[in-house]
Amino acid sequence: MTFSPDHHYSQHKLLVERYLQSFVRESKPHSLYGPSKYVLRAGGKRIRPVVLLLACEAVGGDPREALHAAAGIEILHNFTLVHDDIMDHSPTRRGRPTVHTKWDHNVAILTGDALLALAYRALLRTRSSRIQDVTRLFTEGVVVVCEGQAFDKEFEERRRVHVNDYLMMIQKKTAKMLSVSAEIGGLIGTGDSAKLSALRSYGEALGRAFQVQDDLLDVVADEQMLGKRTGSDLVEGKKTFLLLEALRLAKGKDKATLQKVVNNGGVPRSRIAEYRRIYESSGAIASAERHVDQDLAAARAELERLPASGARMTLLWLTDKLARRTF
Amino acid sequence: MTFSPDHHYSQHKLLVERYLQSFVRESKPHSLYGPSKYVLRAGGKRIRPVVLLLACEAVGGDPREALHAAAGIEILHNFTLVHDDIMDHSPTRRGRPTVHTKWDHNVAILTGDALLALAYRALLRTRSSRIQDVTRLFTEGVVVVCEGQAFDKEFEERRRVHVNDYLMMIQKKTAKMLSVSAEIGGLIGTGDSAKLSALRSYGEALGRAFQVQDDLLDVVADEQMLGKRTGSDLVEGKKTFLLLEALRLAKGKDKATLQKVVNNGGVPRSRIAEYRRIYESSGAIASAERHVDQDLAAARAELERLPASGARMTLLWLTDKLARRTF
Repeated sequence: MTFSPDHHYSQHKLLVERYLQSFVRESKPHSLYGPSKYVLRAGGKRIRPVVLLLACEAVGGDPREALHAAAGIEILHNFTLVHDDIMDHSPTRRGRPTVHTKWDHNVAILTGDALLALAYRALLRTRSSRIQDVTRLFTEGVVVVCEGQAFDKEFEERRRVHVNDYLMMIQKKTAKMLSVSAEIGGLIGTGDSAKLSALRSYGEALGRAFQVQDDLLDVVADEQMLGKRTGSDLVEGKKTFLLLEALRLAKGKDKATLQKVVNNGGVPRSRIAEYRRIYESSGAIASAERHVDQDLAAARAELERLPASGARMTLLWLTDKLARRTF
Repeated sequence: MTFSPDHHYSQHKLLVERYLQSFVRESKPHSLYGPSKYVLRAGGKRIRPVVLLLACEAVGGDPREALHAAAGIEILHNFTLVHDDIMDHSPTRRGRPTVHTKWDHNVAILTGDALLALAYRALLRTRSSRIQDVTRLFTEGVVVVCEGQAFDKEFEERRRVHVNDYLMMIQKKTAKMLSVSAEIGGLIGTGDSAKLSALRSYGEALGRAFQVQDDLLDVVADEQMLGKRTGSDLVEGKKTFLLLEALRLAKGKDKATLQKVVNNGGVPRSRIAEYRRIYESSGAIASAERHVDQDLAAARAELERLPASGARMTLLWLTDKLARRTF
């Protein structure tokens, strides 16, 4: 039987899924544990915890020893989703009503808070001589994610945002947590500092690629494959990489047309095709693809610094899967 | 020069105050660090961190080694205040606009989140062989405080709440964090398990007394001394110890009058004197005083289990100060 990265990923995902299904056993107060279970048992790709487990394995550690931390990272991620959904007034997530929609704002605030504490509870079950470093890294991740979200909300209000501001923001909001996931896995697997550095940079590059790819998919993807309508970012007036890069590159009438997305806080769905053309002709799409390709190449190069192993193959497979834009 | 507990308390409070004044040095994103500094530099009694420092000292430890943890406990407390103020729609705190009033809801949600992460950042600077136990205890404190707040909000919506439900709720919302503060101080001071147990129980008893005393003060205090108008709990229809105990004890017409506070979500300020009389005649005030006295006696008894020291004297002084109802 040949090694299957797909199967390897699924096996690790299953470990995380099982952990999360049974992690919260309390039932009262209902207004806290009802929504907590609702969130943690909603499934998802579980990329961060699987990256953490694979990183542990890739430096020679036992991934089972990293399972508490992997669950902690996923619970932490869910805390950010619950609070971000309140702030963004999002009605649904993964096809289901968000917590503040199904319950109310207060319940969602408190559920998020409890999830953050539960994330630490899971993490702190880790048996590792490096637990203080692990917990510190995790904590710096939380601080930076909060900074990223604050910048994101500030940029919504600002008329002028440079594409470099955007890249700084996604570094904090998305890339940091993937970087922390990989590095924590490496720490628990007792990797040396060169391997930790490779894992940290791998996670960052993968996270950046992931976010810019997400912006690209909204414009160029097949709707069936994406599972939602394309062009939503434009309709909602989101300051994505594409919009900001197009604003930087375009001139004259095209630039004025792009500026309308910012000024009017979005465009009618009927005009999306026009914007897609400007994204294309301005070179914004090519630039986004270049960014993604460079980051994925950087991610692959970091993996080369780790010893060959099944875990490394699966991390590489995950990177390539992202490059094929199907994840 | 004789030992002055008052001075001792002030000295420890000053250490905490200085730490908090300079702890947050970041300035961007402004929407995150502006309100964070606003909250942490607003002063306050700083009871929890001072109890933590004194507990460390009381078991023979160096309180300076517990300063990071003390600051962490106070930052954590401030996280709960910021989020509770959103949930309770409170316009002011310590005489200043609350974060969601001065900024907005989203800023307040995110500031609270960041404060919780910053609390862990401070805590994790502690150098102690028991850091994992310390962090676990801290985390259990956060979970329990969230549970307490969830019960508190659930009780607001419920018609029937028994006084024992209330006592369970304040155990989680108020007493637990004082208990955790005292025990963490003891852990960092490397106290043995008997001393840790005494500190844990001391904190719990003090916390319970503190909350019931708070309910009492709203009805019986001198307004000048309290610094705010008395009777506010009745006007706001809060299910305090006094209201729930009076509902349990009163009969006939008095009981029906009390039930109006629940049914109407509060009473006009003009009728407060009438309620004060029912609280008195039903025996609710005597019961509250008995609860406070018993808890303070229990707190003093726990302190007796610690070796005699200046720190123990100051913890005793704090307990007596509460008994004299001036704190």
